[in-house]
Amino acid sequence: MTLTGHSFIGASRSNESTLTFNVKNPTTGEILEPPFHAATNEDLDEAVQLASNAFTLYSKTCPKTRANFLRTIADKIDALGPEITPRMNAESALPEPRCEGERGRTVGQLRMFADLIEEGSWVDARIETALPDRAPLPKPDLRSMRRPLGPVAVFCASNFPLAFSVAGGDTASALAAGCPVIVRAHSAHAGTAELVASAIQEAVAECQMPEGTFSMIFDAGIDLGTQLVTHPDIKAVGFTGSRTGGRALMDAAAARPEPIPVFAEMSSINPIFVLPGALSERAETIATGLTSSVTLGAGQFCTCPGLVFTTASDTLTDTLKSGFAQTAPATLLHEGISKNYNSGLSSLQNQPGVDTIHQIESPDPSKQGGPTILKTTAENFLNNPSLHEEIFGPSSMIVECTDLDEMLAAASQLEGQLTATVHGTDEDLENASDLLRILEQKAGRLIINGFPTGVEVCSSMIHGGPYPATSDGASTSVGTAAILRYTRPVSFQAFPESLLPDELKSENPRKINRLVNGQLTADPLC
Amino acid sequence: MTLTGHSFIGASRSNESTLTFNVKNPTTGEILEPPFHAATNEDLDEAVQLASNAFTLYSKTCPKTRANFLRTIADKIDALGPEITPRMNAESALPEPRCEGERGRTVGQLRMFADLIEEGSWVDARIETALPDRAPLPKPDLRSMRRPLGPVAVFCASNFPLAFSVAGGDTASALAAGCPVIVRAHSAHAGTAELVASAIQEAVAECQMPEGTFSMIFDAGIDLGTQLVTHPDIKAVGFTGSRTGGRALMDAAAARPEPIPVFAEMSSINPIFVLPGALSERAETIATGLTSSVTLGAGQFCTCPGLVFTTASDTLTDTLKSGFAQTAPATLLHEGISKNYNSGLSSLQNQPGVDTIHQIESPDPSKQGGPTILKTTAENFLNNPSLHEEIFGPSSMIVECTDLDEMLAAASQLEGQLTATVHGTDEDLENASDLLRILEQKAGRLIINGFPTGVEVCSSMIHGGPYPATSDGASTSVGTAAILRYTRPVSFQAFPESLLPDELKSENPRKINRLVNGQLTADPLC
Repeated sequence: MTLTGHSFIGASRSNESTLTFNVKNPTTGEILEPPFHAATNEDLDEAVQLASNAFTLYSKTCPKTRANFLRTIADKIDALGPEITPRMNAESALPEPRCEGERGRTVGQLRMFADLIEEGSWVDARIETALPDRAPLPKPDLRSMRRPLGPVAVFCASNFPLAFSVAGGDTASALAAGCPVIVRAHSAHAGTAELVASAIQEAVAECQMPEGTFSMIFDAGIDLGTQLVTHPDIKAVGFTGSRTGGRALMDAAAARPEPIPVFAEMSSINPIFVLPGALSERAETIATGLTSSVTLGAGQFCTCPGLVFTTASDTLTDTLKSGFAQTAPATLLHEGISKNYNSGLSSLQNQPGVDTIHQIESPDPSKQGGPTILKTTAENFLNNPSLHEEIFGPSSMIVECTDLDEMLAAASQLEGQLTATVHGTDEDLENASDLLRILEQKAGRLIINGFPTGVEVCSSMIHGGPYPATSDGASTSVGTAAILRYTRPVSFQAFPESLLPDELKSENPRKINRLVNGQLTADPLC
Repeated sequence: MTLTGHSFIGASRSNESTLTFNVKNPTTGEILEPPFHAATNEDLDEAVQLASNAFTLYSKTCPKTRANFLRTIADKIDALGPEITPRMNAESALPEPRCEGERGRTVGQLRMFADLIEEGSWVDARIETALPDRAPLPKPDLRSMRRPLGPVAVFCASNFPLAFSVAGGDTASALAAGCPVIVRAHSAHAGTAELVASAIQEAVAECQMPEGTFSMIFDAGIDLGTQLVTHPDIKAVGFTGSRTGGRALMDAAAARPEPIPVFAEMSSINPIFVLPGALSERAETIATGLTSSVTLGAGQFCTCPGLVFTTASDTLTDTLKSGFAQTAPATLLHEGISKNYNSGLSSLQNQPGVDTIHQIESPDPSKQGGPTILKTTAENFLNNPSLHEEIFGPSSMIVECTDLDEMLAAASQLEGQLTATVHGTDEDLENASDLLRILEQKAGRLIINGFPTGVEVCSSMIHGGPYPATSDGASTSVGTAAILRYTRPVSFQAFPESLLPDELKSENPRKINRLVNGQLTADPLC
């Protein structure tokens, strides 16, 4: 497919704007063709208008139809694989196996949501039947289920050009819920975005979905994104990116005349706590696992463990030192990330009491980040909030605690996290209830004797957590529960059968699990 | 019980402040004793500190213990009934049967949440078991469930001194979830609040809950409320009241360094659409039902129907006219409400094209509101946003539409609502799919051939809706689903059985429904 650099406005393409940008290959510095035309304000308005119109029909499509649509998108993305992988590799420096793997995850998510809505019980159908003779007042027939919110704006992540981008988890869950989507492409991998968007645009046509079901705009800066979030017809926002960017969208959405929910996944340092028994029993194994987890994908995962709380251990430090010594400088996703990584790291290294255990020197800091392991004391950590900030990239900091009390104090001071991990022997863990209790308040996912990288896409995954990990700690952006974000429950009182959604009809034609007069059942009502 | 006017700070009482206020009897104008001491900033800090401390233990209490605590509160409120009713009547002008009925609803809610948590399936437990041999990567054991958020601030409503106040739905659902609660009492019924708070304080002691599980502060203005919402240790807010007040709390919470969720139920005009067939078949019946619904409780319900969209009908207008003519001026909850009602009504009556069909003159507008029925045209309504605003009290406005298209146009222009109602014959309703589709986007509850007042407390009730009906359209403040607001899901990865919450243990000791590897079951895992 020849890339054109034009935004996707419903079934059309737009190159109205003369404002263009090119993607730079982060490995070679080469300017990639074609230039991408930023969408105009009119393009954006048209996309939102089309999405509003589409919502009328799309929100009422039957789940089978939407499931077929999601699977068609997945098939088309798979078919484009041979074109996506080299372009994604050129735009992101992510190695080809990772590109292939991430495509697998992306189409897997689309198919997972197709299965979920085809099965149908996710809508949380609840039925209470009428008691017309109840005294002093009759009880009405009242049935509720989750319904879609309306057009959703999705912002692509820099670090997952497929799985958290154009057809990623936000888009897949919103489309599954019955919401049209307008994607704001990430400028660092605009070509990959165009390939995926073309797959979706084709699927919309082939499955005869309303044309406004999907649009995608290119944006050279941040103005269009803000305009999208503040557009009165946009009803929710999905975002994966920086804390600064996410907070700006949260603030913009909260200041609207009609505030709307923003589901932003932003910032996490994913603390790891190594308890004394585990430390004396298997410091080497833990250090080796940690080295892999920190440097996996050049440390560019939201779940990269940036802090390791432990009591003193030469074995741990030495093994980390020799482990990091065997790593290589990694080309990061784009110049902005390299710049932030190197400046963030150097600012951290200049904080009092922070020692560099090992640092891989990067021959070209404008492109690369050298894996780095630092060390400080819990006392320093407790007294210096700068040591609590996320540095996106392949680095981690050991925080040496004199005892368990200091570990608890440090845990209490942490901001919200996506994950928190504890390494311990059975005996360690039996005595760690205070620590686990604190960490449960801080994170969306708690891990025992493992590492936070590797986010399983399934029904029990919570990829979320208190602010600043996300904007809404009760949400997840990974797994089947992600669909709930783009819905709200609606009650139907005294509705005749013919007007009820299928999920709430007495005979239960969709054969879903429902809460009927307090009992969970898939049986019909009568 | 002798009222003291002192705030409840954990197990203590405080009258540190010399800033006091009295409640005025809205019927007689009499100043009621005692004076209430506004809490000090230090009182508030202490209450929050106690709540934070209490959370450690309280969040881990077993559901049976919390259920017993909720039932104890209910029993103690029932026992105080003979004291609550006269004080509530004196403070709110609500007639005694209403006071008794509202107490029944309040204790009913407490017991409903006790039953809910004792049964236990509400936590949405999800289990995916490990696949250690999966290629290319093993799948970890991952289990998730809902856990409490932390200390919750609850603001009492003026119009429900019991059911949406100290021990109302917000407090009951937060305590049921495992969250300590700090209540900000409503100054208009501070004595009722003190009676109920004393019941809760006693129950905390008797059930040996941590003392910070409950506190209640009196506040002479709005500063303490803002201080409470912006306190770093408060993790969520429940509020029922005005749009201005709710939006102020939303904005304050969104501007915090760590934004927190606010569940505010604020403003709704609860439109009613009368379709042509129903109008010609039963205009009188509808008008009679409408008169009752508008004037029920002096129109002081969040679900009072303030707008009636219909085609021209002399029968409807005449029946409403004669129905309203038989009503009497009603003493409203407090002077502020009377003032707002009378000024809001008069400003509405001064809008061009608004006719007064019937107005009961109020002998004392500083205390009373006269039931009033107004009329305008859809054209006026569409062109004048002032006609879309809620007037809290016993009034409603007929909006005469020339045809169904105008009705649809008016529906499309509505803001978010708690409820929307359609009256129609079978034939009307068959042709009303466009209208119902629009209304589903506007409201949390849709009603056919009924009236919105009368909010059933049950599992399928959604008392919520898009802004400005509430701050979070995906929430409900009534019914069992209200508990979800004060919780968030947490994933536990690779946890040993002994560290898992009971709800997630393999043997399923709580015998709850769980989603296990995609199948809903109450069976143990093995």
